[in-house]
Amino acid sequence: MTNETAKRLKIIPLGGLEQIGMNIIAFEYDDSIVVVDCGLAFPEDDMYGIDLVIPDISYLLENQDRVKGFVFTHGHEDHIGALPYILKQLNIPIYATKLTMGLIELKLEEHGLMKTTRRKVVHPGQTINLGQFRVEFIKTNHSIQDAVALAIYSPAGTVIHTGDFKVDYTPVFGDSIDLQRFAEIGRKGVLALMCDSTNAERPGYTASERTVGKAFETIFSEHGNSRLIIATFASNVDRVQQIIDTAYKYGRKVVIEGRSMVNVISTAEQLGYISIPENTLVTLDQMRNYPDEQMVLITTGSQGESMAALSRMAASMHKKVQIKPGDTIVFSSNPIPGNEKSVSKVMNELYAKGADVIFQDAHVSGHPCQEEIKLIYSLVKPAYAIPIHGEYRHRIAQEKVARMLGYDSEHILMLKSGDVLEIDGESAEVTGHVQNGGILVDGLGVGDVGNIVLRDRQHLAEDGIIIVVMTLGNVSGEILSGPDIVSRGFVYVRESEELMEEAQEVIEDAIRSAMSRKSSDWGRIKNAIRDDLSDFLWKRTKRSPMILPIIMEVEE
Amino acid sequence: MTNETAKRLKIIPLGGLEQIGMNIIAFEYDDSIVVVDCGLAFPEDDMYGIDLVIPDISYLLENQDRVKGFVFTHGHEDHIGALPYILKQLNIPIYATKLTMGLIELKLEEHGLMKTTRRKVVHPGQTINLGQFRVEFIKTNHSIQDAVALAIYSPAGTVIHTGDFKVDYTPVFGDSIDLQRFAEIGRKGVLALMCDSTNAERPGYTASERTVGKAFETIFSEHGNSRLIIATFASNVDRVQQIIDTAYKYGRKVVIEGRSMVNVISTAEQLGYISIPENTLVTLDQMRNYPDEQMVLITTGSQGESMAALSRMAASMHKKVQIKPGDTIVFSSNPIPGNEKSVSKVMNELYAKGADVIFQDAHVSGHPCQEEIKLIYSLVKPAYAIPIHGEYRHRIAQEKVARMLGYDSEHILMLKSGDVLEIDGESAEVTGHVQNGGILVDGLGVGDVGNIVLRDRQHLAEDGIIIVVMTLGNVSGEILSGPDIVSRGFVYVRESEELMEEAQEVIEDAIRSAMSRKSSDWGRIKNAIRDDLSDFLWKRTKRSPMILPIIMEVEE
Repeated sequence: MTNETAKRLKIIPLGGLEQIGMNIIAFEYDDSIVVVDCGLAFPEDDMYGIDLVIPDISYLLENQDRVKGFVFTHGHEDHIGALPYILKQLNIPIYATKLTMGLIELKLEEHGLMKTTRRKVVHPGQTINLGQFRVEFIKTNHSIQDAVALAIYSPAGTVIHTGDFKVDYTPVFGDSIDLQRFAEIGRKGVLALMCDSTNAERPGYTASERTVGKAFETIFSEHGNSRLIIATFASNVDRVQQIIDTAYKYGRKVVIEGRSMVNVISTAEQLGYISIPENTLVTLDQMRNYPDEQMVLITTGSQGESMAALSRMAASMHKKVQIKPGDTIVFSSNPIPGNEKSVSKVMNELYAKGADVIFQDAHVSGHPCQEEIKLIYSLVKPAYAIPIHGEYRHRIAQEKVARMLGYDSEHILMLKSGDVLEIDGESAEVTGHVQNGGILVDGLGVGDVGNIVLRDRQHLAEDGIIIVVMTLGNVSGEILSGPDIVSRGFVYVRESEELMEEAQEVIEDAIRSAMSRKSSDWGRIKNAIRDDLSDFLWKRTKRSPMILPIIMEVEE
Repeated sequence: MTNETAKRLKIIPLGGLEQIGMNIIAFEYDDSIVVVDCGLAFPEDDMYGIDLVIPDISYLLENQDRVKGFVFTHGHEDHIGALPYILKQLNIPIYATKLTMGLIELKLEEHGLMKTTRRKVVHPGQTINLGQFRVEFIKTNHSIQDAVALAIYSPAGTVIHTGDFKVDYTPVFGDSIDLQRFAEIGRKGVLALMCDSTNAERPGYTASERTVGKAFETIFSEHGNSRLIIATFASNVDRVQQIIDTAYKYGRKVVIEGRSMVNVISTAEQLGYISIPENTLVTLDQMRNYPDEQMVLITTGSQGESMAALSRMAASMHKKVQIKPGDTIVFSSNPIPGNEKSVSKVMNELYAKGADVIFQDAHVSGHPCQEEIKLIYSLVKPAYAIPIHGEYRHRIAQEKVARMLGYDSEHILMLKSGDVLEIDGESAEVTGHVQNGGILVDGLGVGDVGNIVLRDRQHLAEDGIIIVVMTLGNVSGEILSGPDIVSRGFVYVRESEELMEEAQEVIEDAIRSAMSRKSSDWGRIKNAIRDDLSDFLWKRTKRSPMILPIIMEVEE
C-alpha cells in the first residue's frame, strides 16, 4: 500500500547486512536524509592486494543537497573507518560522542580533513535536529566507550537503532546502558527496532567487562615471576584500564606498544576516558631498568595481524622486545572469524621461544546474546523488527529470537543492502533498490581495482603468467625476433627446461599455422598462441597460467 | 652419551610436528627402517595455486635398501595421502588394516600403482616382522574405522605410537580401544610413548560417537516435515552409519552425494564396515519419486570447500539438488581451523535460500582430550614422552599434561621434524638432523613450484604485473618499436589512462637516460625501467606491481 499524500519514512541500508563491517544506513523523510555510521569492511580472502572496502554512496551523492549529517554510534572501524574517504566526496557535518569524535579526528588529521569537516560533539542523552529528523543519543555499553544507541524521530514515527551494544550492569567506566530511556521511548510507541545481530546465535547473556578484570587478577597473582605481555584490541580502552589497574595493584610498570594502541590510548587519556596512575607508564627504552616480574606490556596483535607488535615479537622482528622463556603472553581477545590460523601461527611461535601462552577466559564480547536482545525488544516493543549488523546467519538468528517474542514474518523485516524500505504506522514495504556495494581501496587508489583486475590477480596467483613476445616486420609480416617466452609464477624455468623447450615448439607451430592462413591478422596469431599453448600446458601440467602474447612491429 | 657398540633406536619424524598434516615418522635400528604413515598436508593460505604438500623423503631415498616397509595407523589423508607420490620414488611394501588398505587402494588405482605395490592387510592384534623390528597393531577408536596404535618392538626397546585415537567405550562399529593391551605392553616396559596432541588443549574427555546418534534422533524427530541434508566428513563411516540407521528408523530414503563420500562409503560397504538396510539407498535421480519428508541427503562439503556438493547446492551450482525453504541442513562437523569463513559463507547462502541450518551438537571429535591422554600414559607408563601430531601449541599442551603426571623435562622430548632422536634404556638425545620439509604439488607437478615461483605468485596476487616491451636494432642499438606497456592485475587501464600515460613518459625518460651512458647494456636499461617506474608507481599509487622489462633485438 503506497500512500501518495502522507509521507513515509525511508530506511536505506547501504551496507552491513551481508557481512560484519561497512555499516551505513540512510534514513530519509521528505527533504531530509540522515546517515548513521560510515564504516569500512576488511577485504575477503580472494580480494588480493586490497587494503579495505568502503561503501558505494552513489545514492547519497545523487541526493547530496538533502543529506543533513552523519551520526555515529561508536568509534570502531566498521562504523567510522570509511568516513575520510566518503567525506572527500560528500562534505557534510558529522555528529558523535566525545571519544568517538576523538577517534574520528585521528583519521581526519591523517587525511588532512580537519579544516574542512564540520563536526559537533554530542553527549548521551542529548537530542539534535537534522532537517525533519530529531536524533537522540542513548547511552549503551560496548567494547569501546561512549557507544550510543539512536532514537531517530521522524514525522512518520520513531526508529531505535541500537548500534553495537551489550547490557553491562557493572561497566568499568561510566554508566550502565540507559535501559530506562529505552523503556520510556518504547512506551510512547516505536515504529521499528534495528538491533545488533552479531551474537544472536548465542543463548544467555554476555558477561560484564569486569569479569575480565577478575581473570587478570588471577593471571597476575599466578604469574608473579613472569614478564606479562597482554595483547588486546587497541580500541578497548576499558580492557586496557583494567590491565593498568591490575598492574598498579601488583606493582608493575606498563608499556603500551603498537601504533594504533598508542594512538587510541593517548586520545582516550586526553579526553579523560582512561586514568593512568602516575609513574605507571614507562617507555620501551625504560623497560630495561625494571626486572621482568615488574613489567606488563600491553600490545596490539591479538588477531595475529602480520605487522602488529605482538606478531613482530613472536617472529623475532621486533626491534626492542625479544620473547624469552619465562614470558607469559595473554591473548585478551577471541580470534575474529578468518583470523584463527594467523593467531595460531603467532601462538606457535611464542611457544617455540619458550614462552607460556594464555588464551582462555581473558575476554568477553561486546555484543548482546539472545537474552539481552529479548530484553531490548521487551523494553522498546517496536511494531517492526529489523535485524541489522551481521552476516545473514546472525540476522536470521535474531529473526528466530523475535519470533519467540511473538513477531510474525510481516513484522520482521529482513532487508538487503540497497533496499529502500518505506515504513509508517500503517505498513512497511520494500519499494525499491538503490546502487550499493563495496568500493575497493588499494594503496591510494579508491575504486580503480574492479572485478577484472581482481580476476586477473586471482588467475596470476593461482598459476602465474607466461608472456610470449615477438617482433614482426610491418611490410613482410615476417618474424624478425622471437617468439621469446618469459614466465613468472608458473614453474621454476631452470628446472623445467624440457617443458619450456616443448612449449617453444608448440608456439612456433601455432604461429606458422596461423600465418599460413589467408587473412592472418595479429588477433588470429595471438589466439592461436593462447589456445595451443594453453592446451599443451594443461595436458602436461594440469595448470592454466595466464598466457599473454605480445606482438611488436618494426618498420622494414 | 653415545654408545658405539650397543646400538640405539633412532626415531626420525619427517613431518607432522609443526602442523596438522604430513604425518610420517621413520624408526631405524641398525639395518632396518620402518616408516609409520605417509600423509599429506593441505597448503597454507599463502601457497597460491598449490593443491597439496607431501613430505621430503630424501633421507629414506638415501637409505632405501634399509627401508623394510610403510605401516599405517588409519586411512585419513594426513596419514595416507602422500603415499602414491612417495611410492613412485620408493617402492616398498605397505601394511595396513582392511579399511585403511581399502582407502589406500582407491589412491593406488587412481595413480596406476596397484600392480607394482606390494601390500598386506593386517588386523588389529596382529604382529608383523620388518627387519629387526616387530610391529604390533593395537585396536583404537577414531573418527574413521580400523584405526590402530602401533607397538614398535626393537632390540633397544619398545615404542608405542598411538596414531590418531580417542577412547570410545561405546563405539558405533566394532570394539572399544584395546586398553588392556596398552596396559599389558606397558607392564613389560615401554621406552617411549608417541601420543596424539590434537586435542591436548582441551580438558576432560571426548564424547562417544554414539552421542551424535542421539543428536540425530532429536533432529529427525523435530524436523519430520523437512528434507534433511546432512554434511559430514566423507571418511567418517560411523557417522554415515548412524545417519542411515536414523533415516531407516524414521522411514526416510538416503542419497549419498559427493565424489569422495560415494567412494569411501562404497569401499566401506564392500569391506563390511557399514551396513545399509535394503531399499534405503536411492540415487539422486530417484529422489524426485519421494516427498521431501522422506528424504535424507548425506553429502560432502561440511568444511565449505568450494567445489564440494553442499557448497554447489548452496551456490545454486548443483545440477540436481536445489535448496528451498523448508530444507534443513545439518553440519555434522566442526570447521577445521582456517575453514571458518568458507563454512560461514555456505551457511549464509543456505539461509538466504530459506533453509534452516543446524550446526551445533551434531559432531564429536576423534582425538583424545586431556583425561584420555592421562589414561594412556597411565596404562603405558613410558620412560619417555614424545608428543606428536599437532602444531607446536598442541604438543606443548600435551607436554603440560605429561608434567602433571610427573614427567620432567629430560623425559619429555619435544622433537622437530628432521630431528634424529637416538634412544635406548639409558638415555635419549637428538644426535642429528636430516633433510625434511614440504614438497609442493601443483597439478601434475611435484616439486617444480618452489619458493621463487611462490614468491612471484604472491607478488602477482598482491599488485599484478606491468610488462614493458621494446625492440632494439642490433647494430644501431636504437629503439625500433615500443616501449609498449601491458599490465594485468594492476589497474583497469581504461579508467587510469592518465596514470598510464605518465608511466609511459617515465619509462621513456629512464631509457633515454640509461642509453646516454657510455656502457649502456640491456641490463642497465632494464634496471632503469624497473627502478624509475617502480618509484613513480609507488609515489602515485602506493603499490608495487611486478615490473618486467623485455627487450627484443632485430637484425638491421
